[in-house]
Amino acid sequence: MHQRNRQIAFAKRPEGIPDASAFVQREAAMPTIGDGELLCRTLVLSIDPYLRLKMHDRRSYTPPLRIGELISGRGVAEVVESRDPGYRVGDIVVISGGWQDFAAIKSSNAKRIEPGTSLGAWLGPLGTTGATAYVGLLEIGKPRAGETLVVSGAAGAVGSLVGQIGKIFGCRVVGIAGSEEKCRTVLEEFGFDACVSYRDRDFGEQLRQVCKDGCGVYFDNVGGSVSFEVAKHFNDFARIVVCGLISQYSGQQPTHPTALDEYLRLILMRRLTVRGFIVSDIAADYPAFESDMRRWLEEGRIRFKEHAYRGFDNIVPAFLGMLAGENTGKTLVYVAEQVAAHSRNPPA
Amino acid sequence: MHQRNRQIAFAKRPEGIPDASAFVQREAAMPTIGDGELLCRTLVLSIDPYLRLKMHDRRSYTPPLRIGELISGRGVAEVVESRDPGYRVGDIVVISGGWQDFAAIKSSNAKRIEPGTSLGAWLGPLGTTGATAYVGLLEIGKPRAGETLVVSGAAGAVGSLVGQIGKIFGCRVVGIAGSEEKCRTVLEEFGFDACVSYRDRDFGEQLRQVCKDGCGVYFDNVGGSVSFEVAKHFNDFARIVVCGLISQYSGQQPTHPTALDEYLRLILMRRLTVRGFIVSDIAADYPAFESDMRRWLEEGRIRFKEHAYRGFDNIVPAFLGMLAGENTGKTLVYVAEQVAAHSRNPPA
Repeated sequence: MHQRNRQIAFAKRPEGIPDASAFVQREAAMPTIGDGELLCRTLVLSIDPYLRLKMHDRRSYTPPLRIGELISGRGVAEVVESRDPGYRVGDIVVISGGWQDFAAIKSSNAKRIEPGTSLGAWLGPLGTTGATAYVGLLEIGKPRAGETLVVSGAAGAVGSLVGQIGKIFGCRVVGIAGSEEKCRTVLEEFGFDACVSYRDRDFGEQLRQVCKDGCGVYFDNVGGSVSFEVAKHFNDFARIVVCGLISQYSGQQPTHPTALDEYLRLILMRRLTVRGFIVSDIAADYPAFESDMRRWLEEGRIRFKEHAYRGFDNIVPAFLGMLAGENTGKTLVYVAEQVAAHSRNPPA
Repeated sequence: MHQRNRQIAFAKRPEGIPDASAFVQREAAMPTIGDGELLCRTLVLSIDPYLRLKMHDRRSYTPPLRIGELISGRGVAEVVESRDPGYRVGDIVVISGGWQDFAAIKSSNAKRIEPGTSLGAWLGPLGTTGATAYVGLLEIGKPRAGETLVVSGAAGAVGSLVGQIGKIFGCRVVGIAGSEEKCRTVLEEFGFDACVSYRDRDFGEQLRQVCKDGCGVYFDNVGGSVSFEVAKHFNDFARIVVCGLISQYSGQQPTHPTALDEYLRLILMRRLTVRGFIVSDIAADYPAFESDMRRWLEEGRIRFKEHAYRGFDNIVPAFLGMLAGENTGKTLVYVAEQVAAHSRNPPA
C-alpha cells in the first residue's frame, strides 16, 4: 500500500490569467475510512474550466475555494480498501476526490463503472462533460432538424460533443474554435458541417458565410466578443444555451460598450430565449442520457477525443493549458496505472 | 353619414425622441367596402409604445412604417355599414384600423364585443395589453406563491396588470415607476406590495430594501439602466420576461460599459432564463385568458385605469405623452361618441 498522499491545494487567488503560483503541492496523511466508506486511489483526473470560477472570491454557482483548501475535481479511481460490502478492492469508480493520490469517499458518492470501457470516457461523454452537452442542448437548445446550431468552444470537451449530438438530431452544425488546426479536427473528427476560427481577422465575415440561414440554437461555452458576433445571426425564436463563458473567467476586458442594450434589443425583437444552466440542475430529468450516449459511442456516431497528460506533476500544467486553449477534446491527467484489471482499455 | 375621413400618416423618421413633426394629418376619401367587409367608425384608439419601434428603419418584430403610410393601431369602432350578414350597423368591434376616422375591415379581422362592458377595457385588460401581461407572466415568468415579482413600468398599461396578476398568483410584487405620484397609484390602486421610483437618487438602495429576498421573476417593460439595477437581485433560476424596452426605443445612450459580460455572467451563475416575446407568439396557448380576466375584473381583483384623451387632434399628443412617461395606466384616445347604444359605459 502506498503511504504517500500528494495533494494540490489552493495557494492564492490569481488576478487575471492564473499561473502555477495559485497552487501548492503538499503531502498529507493517508486518509482513513469508516464504515460505508472506500479508500480510492486516483487514476485519472478530469480537468474542467469551472475551477477557474472557484478561484474568484465572488458569488458563482459553485462556492469559492478557500486558501489552503484541496482543489476539488472529478476523477476515476480504484478502490484500494473497502468498508462497504458492496465494493471490492479493485473496483473502478467515478468520484469527486479532488487533486490528490488517495481519497476517502462514502460509497454512496461513488459510481462504479463497468470493465471494458475506456476510463477517460467516464470523465468525457459518459460523465459530467457528456451530460452537460446532452441536457444543455436538449433541454434549452431544443434542436430541430434542419436548423443551424452554432457551438463556441467547438474543439473543447463539451463543445465537441454538443456538435455531434446536434448532428444526430439533424442540425446543420457550425463550430467556432481558436485555430485552423482545431477547426480541421472539428470538421474531420467531430463531423461538424463548418468551423471558423475566431482568431481570424475576418472571423465576422466567415461566420456570416456559414450562417446564411441564421442561427436557431447557439450553444455558448465562451462568451465575450465571440458571442456578440454570433448574436448578429440569431433567428427569431432562437435558443441560446449559456453553458460557459471561459473567455471571461479571468476577468478580461468587456466585449463591447453598447452591447447589453443591443443584446436585450435582440432578445425582444427576435423573441430569444437565453438560459444559463449547470448540469446538476437538470440531469435528473434526462434518465436516458447514459444509455443514449453509450449507444452513440458504440455506433461510432459520437467520437471522443482526449487531450491527455501523464503524471501528478502535470495536473497544474494541464489546467493552465486548458485555460489557454491548448486542448482539443477533453483534458485529462492520468495520475497512476490501475493495479487491478477490471478495465481493459489503458490510456491511449 | 360622415364624409370626412381624417387620417394621421407617418411624415418622417425621428432621430431620438419623436415630436409632432414625425406625423402629418390629412384627409382621405371615405373607404368603400366589398362583400364580407365592414365600414367601421373609430370610437377609441389604443396608444402603444411599440409604435416607436415601427418608426425606425431597422429590423424589429414589426415591419417599419413607410413614409406616408397610415399609422397603424388597434381601436374600438362602431359598424356603420356591413356587407357581412353576421354584422349589423351599430355593432361594436375591436379592429386594427389605424389612426383614422373610418376603416374598411374584413369581418374576419373584427372581434365583436358585448354590450355592457367599458369600451376602453377591450383595449386594456381584455385586449392585447391584458393578453401581453397575462401570457408573458404565466408563460415565461412562471410565478410561484411567495416569490418576489419585480415589474418595471409598473404604472403603465401592461405593468399595472402584471403586478395585479402576480398578486392573484400569490407573489410579493415590487413595482418600479417614474415618480412618487405613480408609485402611490401603484400601491393604492393596483395593490402592489412596494414601489420605488427609478428617478430617485437612491433608487438602487431603495430597490435593495424591497428586494431583500431577491427577485424570482422580473417583468421588464423598460430595459436600460433600471433593468441592470434589478439584475443585481436576481435569485438563482429567476425568470426575466423581456416584454418591452421603452427606455431604449428612441436610441438612448448605452446603459453601462461592462454590462453585457456582467449580464451573461449572471445568466450563467444564477441559471437565469431571459426570454423576449410578443403576445401574438403565444396567445393561442392561453385560451383561458379572456374568461380569467373577465372574472378578475368582475371580482374587483384587477383594477383598470385609463389615461384618456379626447378628440382626434389629441392622438399625437397622447402618443408623445406616453413616450415621455406621462401616463398612469392605459393610454387611450376617445375619438368619437358612439351613435348606436350597444354599450352602456361611456368613457369615464
